[in-house]
Amino acid sequence: MNRRRKIYEGKAKVLYEGPEPGTLIQHFKDDATAGNGAKHEIIDGKGVLNNRISEFIFSRLNQLGIPTHFVRRINMREQLIREVEIIPIEVVVRNVAAGSLCKRLGLESGTQLPRSIIEFYYKDDALGDPMVSEEHITAFGWANPQELDDIMALAVRVNDFLTGLFMGVGIQLVDFKIECGRLFEGDLMRIVLADELSPDNCRLWDIKTRNKLDKDRFREDLGGLVDAYREVAQRLGILVEADNALTTGPRLVQ
Amino acid sequence: MNRRRKIYEGKAKVLYEGPEPGTLIQHFKDDATAGNGAKHEIIDGKGVLNNRISEFIFSRLNQLGIPTHFVRRINMREQLIREVEIIPIEVVVRNVAAGSLCKRLGLESGTQLPRSIIEFYYKDDALGDPMVSEEHITAFGWANPQELDDIMALAVRVNDFLTGLFMGVGIQLVDFKIECGRLFEGDLMRIVLADELSPDNCRLWDIKTRNKLDKDRFREDLGGLVDAYREVAQRLGILVEADNALTTGPRLVQ
Repeated sequence: MNRRRKIYEGKAKVLYEGPEPGTLIQHFKDDATAGNGAKHEIIDGKGVLNNRISEFIFSRLNQLGIPTHFVRRINMREQLIREVEIIPIEVVVRNVAAGSLCKRLGLESGTQLPRSIIEFYYKDDALGDPMVSEEHITAFGWANPQELDDIMALAVRVNDFLTGLFMGVGIQLVDFKIECGRLFEGDLMRIVLADELSPDNCRLWDIKTRNKLDKDRFREDLGGLVDAYREVAQRLGILVEADNALTTGPRLVQ
Repeated sequence: MNRRRKIYEGKAKVLYEGPEPGTLIQHFKDDATAGNGAKHEIIDGKGVLNNRISEFIFSRLNQLGIPTHFVRRINMREQLIREVEIIPIEVVVRNVAAGSLCKRLGLESGTQLPRSIIEFYYKDDALGDPMVSEEHITAFGWANPQELDDIMALAVRVNDFLTGLFMGVGIQLVDFKIECGRLFEGDLMRIVLADELSPDNCRLWDIKTRNKLDKDRFREDLGGLVDAYREVAQRLGILVEADNALTTGPRLVQ
């Protein structure tokens, strides 16, 4: 496994060369970071859970006709994906005010937004991933207007599906972050969903208890991160039952 | 003059009740502020110059068919304007990278932008006028999509005119900020340019010397602010000649 060529290593994932041209292996690490890397911990079992949760979501998005880079899960920590040209923009969809939006606009966390709001952040660690607008994105050529339209349409569809999916298991989808890429097939290019969808990049609040079931547990030092992620996986029907044997990883439905 | 009802006092201007319904008096003060009011000075003669420069620009925009709130100048420091409902958004048009854009996107000041970029900032001193996107503006109802389209079209026209005007007198229009308002006429409402256009809210660089002829002289403690504003007024043909008798104000073309 170590002889594979590493293509890219991010904060929470590694991309390796795939088994055939146009494919990659996406490996989920246990690393948790926040504050643009200022805070960093290894959280045993997080990668395994995110791999399964993201597999669950991406495979259902594929079935719905929402194009993604996901092909199939390979093992506990890895999935086969199609190679795409990542667009250097983090797309955030917000349904309820939380995080940086509260600070920016002086809103109380938990405020229902008048409608879902899409935001864009330029992926650049050195600049702290600054918020940008459609104007910046098209002016600097990070995406053209047609691509941006496709990205926004895709983001809205993902929001619609995920809002329903989580609502069905008693969880409010507060917001989430996606990344998109250009998938080239012969002369054709289309925008597809890339990266992952997991409690690392969604804010998920238990509808009854208002408990946070996402990475804010780490950002805000609330503890119990893996328990929360396992709770999400269980509700989605991915885990058979609670499994506290973290060293061996959660027991997964085969 | 002091018996007039004050409608609003901003950092650099005061609005008084006008002589008839639907009008206001816009009074230009000598106050200069920066850093959201953190820095504040009185600069003798600035208000008089801005009143004249803004009159010059707004009257020409009116002639061009670009709708503004401006009616006519009344005296050295005041102009008659139409009362509008101000949209709480500062609209910035940038042709060359400078100021906050450089910090946000890691650009060197003076970098020519690939195309003109329109930015929006939510007018809220307590929040530090945060940058917002079209998404925030329409979601929170600060302006509706049609109004936003009108605002952007108006901003582009103002940029086209001002770029040409200043180029003709050896000055590069780096960027500028405008505010817009809703003007109600019977059942009709239209978006018009409001506020002012002066070296207080434009970045103006001498094309030959690269000297700054705008409020950055104050923000960056370069000194010579009134001289620079007078230079702009002179080049536009507003002042007959250099006039250093600041206490009596610059000599103006009648």
